[in-house]
Amino acid sequence: MAANERDTPLPLSEALERGHLFAEACPSREVLKHVTSRWGVLVLIALLTGTHRFSALRRKIGGVSERMLAQTLQWLEDDGFVLRVSHPVVPPHVEYSLTPMGQEVAEQVRGLADWIEVNMPRIGKVWEKRGVAAE
Amino acid sequence: MAANERDTPLPLSEALERGHLFAEACPSREVLKHVTSRWGVLVLIALLTGTHRFSALRRKIGGVSERMLAQTLQWLEDDGFVLRVSHPVVPPHVEYSLTPMGQEVAEQVRGLADWIEVNMPRIGKVWEKRGVAAE
Repeated sequence: MAANERDTPLPLSEALERGHLFAEACPSREVLKHVTSRWGVLVLIALLTGTHRFSALRRKIGGVSERMLAQTLQWLEDDGFVLRVSHPVVPPHVEYSLTPMGQEVAEQVRGLADWIEVNMPRIGKVWEKRGVAAE
Repeated sequence: MAANERDTPLPLSEALERGHLFAEACPSREVLKHVTSRWGVLVLIALLTGTHRFSALRRKIGGVSERMLAQTLQWLEDDGFVLRVSHPVVPPHVEYSLTPMGQEVAEQVRGLADWIEVNMPRIGKVWEKRGVAAE
C-alpha cells in the first residue's frame, strides 16, 4: 500500500482485489505479524480483562520470557494498541492497558482464539485419525 | 487440556478461567500457531475464494517459498482445515481447498485481516507520530 493511499480504508474484498495483504511489501503484514505473534495473541487477550503490570502479565502467560514479553509489548505499543504508563515511584511501577484501537483488534483476535478453543474437540479427532501427535 | 476433556467445547471466557490457551502445553496454541503463521493467514484467505493448485497459490501469495508453502499446507491439512486432492495424471495435478471446518476458521482469520486492512490509516498515523518506519 502506498503512503498516499493510507487515507482510504478499504473493505477486505477490495483490498485483496488490489493485492494489498498478498503483496510482500504491504505494511499491514507487519501489523498482522505483531497481533498474531505467539505472544501477541495472548497479551491482547489478557489485556482485554483489564490493566496489568509487567510481572502480572508474565505470570499469566505461561512460558513467555522477559525479553519476548517486552518485545511484544513494544510492538503493540508502537502500533497504537497498547498504552504503557510508567509511574515515577521506587521500585518502578509500569502498567499496560489496551487503547480503544487495541480493544477493537483484541476482540478480533479473541474471536479467532475462541473459535479454536471451542473447536479443539473436532480438531483433536482429525489429529487422532491422521496420527498427528499433539505437541 | 487433557485428552479426556476434548469432548466438552468451552466458551473462551471459561477456557481462560481454566487456563487453557494461557497454559504452555495447551494443544490449542499449536493450532493458533498454524492459522496465524505468516503464510497460514494468507493461504486461508486465498482459499476462501475457491480451490487452488499449488502453483496458483504460490503466485498469489507474494514472497512465499515453495518449501514454506508446502509446510503451511501440510499443517492446515493435518488440522483438518485444508483438503488436498491429487489427480493421478502426468504431470501431477494437486488441488487444495477448504474443508467446512477450514471455511469457519478462515472466516475468523479474514475478520482480523479485514480489521487491519481497514484500520491501516489509523495505525499509519500512530507510526508517523512515533517515528516508526514501515518495514
